[in-house]
Order: sequence, then structure tokens, then C-alpha cells
Amino acid sequence: MAHHEQSTATFPEHIRKKRNGEQLSAGEIRDFVQGVKDKTIQESQIGAMLMAIWLQGMVAEETLTLTKEMMMSGEVMSWPAEWEGLMVDKHSTGGVGDKISLVLAPALAACGCKVPMISGRGLAHTGGTLDKLESIPGFNVYQSVQQLHRILEEVGCCIVGQTDNLVPADKVMYALRDVTSTVDSLPLITGSIISKKGAESLSALVLDVKFGNAALYKDLGSAKLLAQSMFGDPYGAVLSRMNCPIGRCVGNTLEVMESLECLKGRGPDDILELVTSLGGLLLWMIGRAGNLEEGKKVISTTLQNGAALEKFQNMMIGQGVTSQIAASLCSTNADYHSILRRAHYQTELETQGHGTVLDIDGMVIAQVLHRLGAGRSKAGDPVNHSVGAELLVSLGQKVEKGQAWLRVHYETPALSAEQRLSLQGALTLGPVDQLHTQPLVAEIILP
Amino acid sequence: MAHHEQSTATFPEHIRKKRNGEQLSAGEIRDFVQGVKDKTIQESQIGAMLMAIWLQGMVAEETLTLTKEMMMSGEVMSWPAEWEGLMVDKHSTGGVGDKISLVLAPALAACGCKVPMISGRGLAHTGGTLDKLESIPGFNVYQSVQQLHRILEEVGCCIVGQTDNLVPADKVMYALRDVTSTVDSLPLITGSIISKKGAESLSALVLDVKFGNAALYKDLGSAKLLAQSMFGDPYGAVLSRMNCPIGRCVGNTLEVMESLECLKGRGPDDILELVTSLGGLLLWMIGRAGNLEEGKKVISTTLQNGAALEKFQNMMIGQGVTSQIAASLCSTNADYHSILRRAHYQTELETQGHGTVLDIDGMVIAQVLHRLGAGRSKAGDPVNHSVGAELLVSLGQKVEKGQAWLRVHYETPALSAEQRLSLQGALTLGPVDQLHTQPLVAEIILP
Repeated sequence: MAHHEQSTATFPEHIRKKRNGEQLSAGEIRDFVQGVKDKTIQESQIGAMLMAIWLQGMVAEETLTLTKEMMMSGEVMSWPAEWEGLMVDKHSTGGVGDKISLVLAPALAACGCKVPMISGRGLAHTGGTLDKLESIPGFNVYQSVQQLHRILEEVGCCIVGQTDNLVPADKVMYALRDVTSTVDSLPLITGSIISKKGAESLSALVLDVKFGNAALYKDLGSAKLLAQSMFGDPYGAVLSRMNCPIGRCVGNTLEVMESLECLKGRGPDDILELVTSLGGLLLWMIGRAGNLEEGKKVISTTLQNGAALEKFQNMMIGQGVTSQIAASLCSTNADYHSILRRAHYQTELETQGHGTVLDIDGMVIAQVLHRLGAGRSKAGDPVNHSVGAELLVSLGQKVEKGQAWLRVHYETPALSAEQRLSLQGALTLGPVDQLHTQPLVAEIILP
Repeated sequence: MAHHEQSTATFPEHIRKKRNGEQLSAGEIRDFVQGVKDKTIQESQIGAMLMAIWLQGMVAEETLTLTKEMMMSGEVMSWPAEWEGLMVDKHSTGGVGDKISLVLAPALAACGCKVPMISGRGLAHTGGTLDKLESIPGFNVYQSVQQLHRILEEVGCCIVGQTDNLVPADKVMYALRDVTSTVDSLPLITGSIISKKGAESLSALVLDVKFGNAALYKDLGSAKLLAQSMFGDPYGAVLSRMNCPIGRCVGNTLEVMESLECLKGRGPDDILELVTSLGGLLLWMIGRAGNLEEGKKVISTTLQNGAALEKFQNMMIGQGVTSQIAASLCSTNADYHSILRRAHYQTELETQGHGTVLDIDGMVIAQVLHRLGAGRSKAGDPVNHSVGAELLVSLGQKVEKGQAWLRVHYETPALSAEQRLSLQGALTLGPVDQLHTQPLVAEIILP
């Protein structure tokens, strides 16, 4: 960083300016980000500035500066020259049952890409990729920059937590946005995401933006707005509908099992569609495929021929799992529960009528699982990896009354009668002519 | 306070609600104020809530609740039954040269009122009543509740600083509003002022709201808006114009001297007009005068007949000044500078043209004096009581070129050439037909 003089006396001026809806200069944004990083700005001032940004917004130029300054607040990774054009990653806005990273990272590595995937933990209803991986005995999401280099060299992909040196200003702001109700602000979301991805020094990035009942964005319009606020050249985006959970499993351990099934070529269609779309777009963007369809086929092949599975196996070993455990999990007919802890209790919910499955509300399922211990209410809370649910029916399927449609895995606290009732409300049955199926992927935005 | 259960998990919800422009319930406002007092709400959350209130506002009902909850966050004073109907106080929005409290409090005491005046220190260009009084050797603005009772019993008035137990939530919010640029918000101003005055358990309160170049409010409209936001029965308000300084002296020691002159019946007309208007309104409000004019006359008499001066003398003694010093200051031909420190240097500025005095910009004078050490930039900074300025001319006066118009009292730092130039810019001369004099008191708002 260039030498930068700053006195705390000017922070109230910067806050006042944004409060009044004025555009902040690059220097003023730099002051703020440096102040956050150096702790020379008071927490009350950060809270006030975040709220002023939430309410008054930022123009593209400000958001760009905010993102750059956040990125420059810490270490920016550098890679060997021979990896140029190969560094790729994905960012997802999160969703119920979202295990895309676990399948996509090894699939891309199998295509020769380098995937330094830095992920987060779950908060509220969205599962965290790190939490899912930690349900695998021995899997260590904390890797030094040196180890990260080694794993990328030897395997091609790794999924790790944010290091202390990476975008330190975001660490502070992310935590404070949560408690100050300033999470859902486009400039702040963009700054947080792109600064972290920028610090990864990527060749290409795709955004997995979900919209619908079970997603952060309720409609295509606001999802597009987010994708478009992620300015810059090497970003593409896949906008997909999300009312039902992704795949058939929700919950950390169950999602790892489902991811392994995908890597063995036996995954559900919706996961396959998302993984091939996101991966295919990336391959096209870095010139490893002539068009999107070709990219999708290449990714699909790595899932069918075991190449992606092998990468996942080696990534697990690279990140601390014993080769025996890794091999067991990746064997064709793996007994997953010999390695991954199974919850003490399983119960199956039965349909209360007959008809066609019109909707499965992922948000309701996630909220009940959350209260059963699958998620955390605040950063640092423990999670129970084994708590989860398996969907036994799928959208558009004709069901009889009394047919099992959801298997809930739980321990303590036990599933209550009230929670059973909530879960039953998540399933909508009706006449087949009321079924409105729309394609999962609504739009692809090219860089 | 009633038992009140609260979990920190709900603060983000309250912030979100206000952020979205919704009305907060009484319970939500109570949560916030209690959280501020108990420190269970994080500073970043206070900053965010203050900014949300600044930007989204509050309806009268919310402001009323905020004020009550702030008041109830600490001790609420109680007075002997025989003082009922006699407890009065004034709140001023501040201004350059504002020494009204020093004259008004003893004048009201001389009329049989009880005046428990809790004042503040100066910040930025506005002088603080406590700072002025502390330029009197021995004057102690920190008095326990017991001492305050005794002084009110024996003298009838006292001017003290805020005790720790009085409106503790305001202490925190006031400091944070300053650094988060959320000072000038009507609900927050109202909450801060009226909660403190409410905790004084008053029979009647008047607001001294100034507007103009040298005041916080630039026009009558915004001054009225403030006065009207101070809901409730026993509040009246005097709205007065303020471009020039009040009286002829600016600076702590000089203002004490000018206040003593007022109490000796020799004060300038503008001070007299404000003191009698505010005091007369209060006397009318508590039924000690039949109308405003009668109230003004009663107050005026206490300034002419020495009754107010005697109260001031006894108040000084009650608050720690020796009876010798108090008597010296109150003697008819007092040599003030034998007791009150005089600055090392005095310099007189001369007019650079001739004509009629059309304007004297109080704000410019205050800003230069501030840099010479008369005021503080942040709470806790020391002030130099002796630094100040005396106006040697008044509005509408005809002056010759080279006539002394301002006497500046300074020490270290010295008055610079640039500051001389600024001060010269504060004086506007012109032809007499451009003189637009308007009455000092623009409007009186009755309760």
C-alpha cells in the first residue's frame, strides 16, 4: 500500500457525506476501509457508515473503489506463471441443499483448471461448504498459503477457509453487517464477494445466483441486479430458480454423501445441470471450450468417467483425510455411514393426501433442520453435522396418500409435533394440470 | 424500572425495521434504550440505529417513547411537595456569546422559582455554560443530588453538570451521535434534551431556539420545526434571530463579566430582551404572572433592584466560591480582573472603511476564538477561559475609518495575520439605507 495519512477527525465527515446521499471520493473510501482494517475507526462509526451505504447506496464507481480497497487491505495471492489462464472459482449466493462446490471444484480440476476455492461457514438457513466438508473425519479447512499452493500443484483444487491475511477489512465488516442488518446491500455484497475473489487473483469467476422462495433473492429481477453489480471483465453468472432444495439431501453429512454420488455419476439432474452450467461457462471463458454446450459436455464427462471423483479423493487426502477413509468414501458401493456419523433417529413423514408434487418449500425444511441443530444462529455456534433430511419424492411426481416423502435425521433436540406440522406444510400436492415446471437455469450472463 | 427481558438476538430486527422506515413499537424502543444503557447492544448496532433514525425519522409517538425511555434509563429527581409548580428550567440550542443561563437562573430564583439547571460543556463554536462558570475561581459544577437539594432550598437556583445517574442512555448516545454524524436529527435532539429536562421533574420548561447565521438552525422554519417536535404540555419556546453574537462579549471569562453587568442592571438590550422573554414566559406558564408582559416586567425588576445579583452571589457561594470572591465580583464597581484571569495580550482591530454597521458575523468570530483556544475540538480538551473578544461597536452604529471595533484577548497561540483577516471579514459596513433591523425575538410559542 502507498503511504496513507489519515486522521480520525475526518471519519464523521465521510459518514455525513454518504448520509446525505453524496458520492464518496476514492480517498474517502480508502480512509474508511483502512480505518476498518487498522481499527482507527470506531465500531459505532462503521455501523453508521454501513447503514448510510445501505440506505443511500453507492454508484458503480464507488462500489469498484470499495471492492479494490477491501481487496488491497490484505494479502493478494500470486500464482506461478504457468497457471495463467487456469485460475477459476465460483461464488454462490447460497441456498438450501447447495453442495455445488463439492462437485464443481474437482470437476474443474479434472479439466486442468486450478481452483483455489475459499469458502464460508453457514449462517441461518444456508449451509456452509466448510461445515459440510468438516463432517468428513480428518478434513482440515485451514490451510496455509504454502499448503494451498502445494495442493493446487498436486491436485488442482482445494476448498479452504479464509486466512487471516485475506481481505481483513471484510472480516470486520462482514461480522458487523450481520448484527447491524446491513447484509442485503448490493455495494456491500459486491465489495465483500469480489474483494475476496479478487484477492485470489483469478483468471475467471462465475456467480451462481439463485432466486426464488428458498433463496436470498426472491425474483429474477433482483438476482440480475446483483449479477450486474458485479462489474468487471472476467465474471460470468448463472441465474437459477430455487424454490425446492438443490438435490435430494439437506444437512452437512447427507450433502457430502449426495456430492459423492454426483461424483460417481449418479447424482440428481438439478445438481448435474448446475455443475455443468457453471463449469461449462468457466471452461468457455478461459478458452478451454469453444462454446457453453461443449464446456458442459466436458464437465459432464469428468463426472461420468471418475476423473472428478479421483480429484475429490486426492483433495481430501491433501487436506488431511487418511487415504483409507478417502478411498472408502470414493469406492463405487461405499458404506458411507461406516465413516460418516449417522444421526440416532430417522423418521419418515407420510403424505396426507394424493396427487402430483407441485412444490417442496426448501426454506421451511431448512428452518426446521436449523432448530434441530443443523445450522447456527451466530458465528461460532457448533453445528450437528448428522442432522438433515432426505427428499423421497420429487417435483412433478404422482404420489399416493400415506406415501413416505421426507426422511428426517435428528438427535437432541427431538423432532416436535409442531415441527412435523411445519414440515408437512412444505409439501404441496395438487392436480397435475397445476404443475408449472420452468427450466432450472433461467439465464446465463456472459462476461 | 419494571422487569424487562431482552435477548441481543432481536436488536438486528429492530434496526432492520427502522432501516425499512417502519414505526418502532414502544417495546422495541425500550429494548434499544435499555441495551444502550446496559451495554448489551454493540456500538456498531447503536451507530447503525442512529443512522437509520437520522435517515428514516421517527413519528411523534416514537419520539415520545424514546424520550420517556431515555428519561427512565436513570434517576428521575423528586422534589419536596412545597416546591410543586415552582420547578422551572430553560434549554437553549446554543449560540455565540450565549450567557443567558447565568442571568436567567438567578432572576427566576429571585421570583421564588426553583431552578435546577443542568448544563453542558461547549463543543465546537458554541460556548458551554459550565465552562463559563468554571472561569470563576472555586466554582464547582459537580454537585451531588443532596447538595443540589440544599442549594435549591437555600438559594433557589444552581447550575451544575449532568450526574452519572441522570439519563445514562443519553450519555452514550450523545457521544456516539457526535462521531457518527447523527447529531442533527429532530427525534434524537428531542430525546436527548427532553429526557434530561424530564428527569429534572419540572413544572415548566422554556426552549430558547436561535436561528440565523451564527446558530444551529439557519432559518425560522427549521427552528420552529425543532420547537414543535418538543411535544408535551409544559413546554414553551422563544424563537430568536442570531447572526451577531449575543451581547458584546464572547469567551468564557468575558461572558461571566458581561453576565455580572446584566445582573447589576447594566447589560446590553439583546441579553435583557432574551432573559425577560424567557423568564417572563416561564412566570406566566406557572401562574406567577398574568400575562407575558407582566412576567417580563417582574424579571426586569429583579435585574434592576439587585435581587437577581444577590441570588447569583449566593449560588456562587453555594457552589464553592469563597464569600470574599463572590462579594468582590458582585460589588457595584468590581475590578473583575483582580479575580478573573485576564489574557496576556489584547489587540484592537480597526475598521477599514466608514459607514453603518450592517452585520457582525458571530460564527466567524467564534471560529477564530476557537482556534485561539477558547473552545474544544473534542470532549475532554482543555479550554483557555481568558481567550475571547469584546465588540466595541453595535449593529446600526455609524463608524469612521480606523475606529476600533473589536478587542481580541489572546495568549498562545498568538493571533495570526490570517486570523486578523478573517475577523475583519466578520464586520460588514454599508450605507444606512441597507440596514434591515428585525426584532430579536421572532416568535413565542405557547404551551
